[in-house]
Amino acid sequence: MIQANDPARPPLRVSCIQFEPEFGAVAKNLARASDLVRAAAREGSRLVVLPELASTGYVFETPEEAAALAEPVPDGPTTRAWGDLAAELGIHIVAGIAEQAGDALYNAALITGPDGFIGTYRKAHLWYRENLFFRKGDLGFPVFDTALGRIGIAICYDGWFPETFRRLALAGAEIVCIPTNWVPMPDQPAGEAAMANTLHRAAAHSNGIFIACADRVGVERGQPFEGQSLIIGPKGWTLAGPASREAPETISAVIDLAEAGAKDLNEFNSVLGDRRTDLYA
Amino acid sequence: MIQANDPARPPLRVSCIQFEPEFGAVAKNLARASDLVRAAAREGSRLVVLPELASTGYVFETPEEAAALAEPVPDGPTTRAWGDLAAELGIHIVAGIAEQAGDALYNAALITGPDGFIGTYRKAHLWYRENLFFRKGDLGFPVFDTALGRIGIAICYDGWFPETFRRLALAGAEIVCIPTNWVPMPDQPAGEAAMANTLHRAAAHSNGIFIACADRVGVERGQPFEGQSLIIGPKGWTLAGPASREAPETISAVIDLAEAGAKDLNEFNSVLGDRRTDLYA
Repeated sequence: MIQANDPARPPLRVSCIQFEPEFGAVAKNLARASDLVRAAAREGSRLVVLPELASTGYVFETPEEAAALAEPVPDGPTTRAWGDLAAELGIHIVAGIAEQAGDALYNAALITGPDGFIGTYRKAHLWYRENLFFRKGDLGFPVFDTALGRIGIAICYDGWFPETFRRLALAGAEIVCIPTNWVPMPDQPAGEAAMANTLHRAAAHSNGIFIACADRVGVERGQPFEGQSLIIGPKGWTLAGPASREAPETISAVIDLAEAGAKDLNEFNSVLGDRRTDLYA
Repeated sequence: MIQANDPARPPLRVSCIQFEPEFGAVAKNLARASDLVRAAAREGSRLVVLPELASTGYVFETPEEAAALAEPVPDGPTTRAWGDLAAELGIHIVAGIAEQAGDALYNAALITGPDGFIGTYRKAHLWYRENLFFRKGDLGFPVFDTALGRIGIAICYDGWFPETFRRLALAGAEIVCIPTNWVPMPDQPAGEAAMANTLHRAAAHSNGIFIACADRVGVERGQPFEGQSLIIGPKGWTLAGPASREAPETISAVIDLAEAGAKDLNEFNSVLGDRRTDLYA
């Protein structure tokens, strides 16, 4: 396990790839996204986050359609493709994927590194018609010990639940990677920034963690997406982004994950230590 | 108990009084704040929120100084003054107060209405040197059934803990009143809006509740305060404010508390109903 405040850890360049997947065009999406990941790696990024369901697109119409595009993880071609790319570039990749596990489908994300596949997260909170296609995640909120640091993953609507970030922070996550497909919220006033940006800045601040959100853009089968990908520091201030609402864009920040080990706000207060565990879990 | 979606409940005008208490000048602060409450009531407000420690000021230097300014609740002169004002105007008032209870001091807030004293909340999460003067709140997170609706209270640093709002929302709060004395946060970039605004907008959205924050302004014994009081709707969008950073200002909004009963985001999703209680408490 990597220790927080390890002086041996050099600064880490993180990138979030905001792009527009084409529904069902898996090979094309992998090729396009791989080009963008390569470009980020050339600039020095060693952790690259891709959107939710980055390889398949999002708006399934039937369970059959979802099943036809889902793949086993890690023993499927898309996971192998990300794994090969991560190994070739010597980086870590977090990418959303439609996972097939026996009869079950999950809205999942994988993490893979220079030395191979690391793990899977399955979305715990399903949004809207996802409930027709996917099962609720059954892996809890794992934190992956990697050569870069302790990495958690959450997907889109998971971020609406403060418990997601609390569980990950209490389990030692230094950064939470968010593959997402944010959509406009009910009653959203015209021109308002994405509510998701507010939710994730609050979560970063309240837990003293980095959060890196990679959203998609475009309109798919009538569903618009919000873009506005961003990278947030452990005091809740935005380090990169928000990206534009509509255009593909890669955002990057150079961060020191050890800063997520400093939960103190002053000599009396700590965002985790001050929790009233006598009043709530 | 008032029922959510009760058609008999007329729209409710809520005001937050942002002003500058003078340290130790209790009579003067009560007089000044009462003038501002009367003005809000004349405009039709029936729920008025005042800052944390509104009558005493905030920056105590010694426990003896805090003890000298603290009062019993409800059997003290400040509580009686707020009660008399609420009865005279036919409104509800929520105000921060330094509470003396036997040997113990609490950073507390009271709620009082046209028919008399309703209840007390004691701040659960103490900020910075408050830990030298006050005990941690021991009343949990009560929700008060009132003629207006179901009202919760939290004070300043309580709002840094998502659990505060989750407990209140799960207990049926429709609006949470926040008497506060926000201070700048560590590493706050110049010109950034108060982190507290982000935290409370996220909390309102994630819980489907109204939140009304009454902050103070000014610099007291070297400590600057943030102002930027605001009233937030149950989808997280700002209804009034943020007020200025430095000037006294009353902000108001006309709201329908029944909207806090609608936790649904669409036909599949509910901000409380989607909680994965198999994964967290």
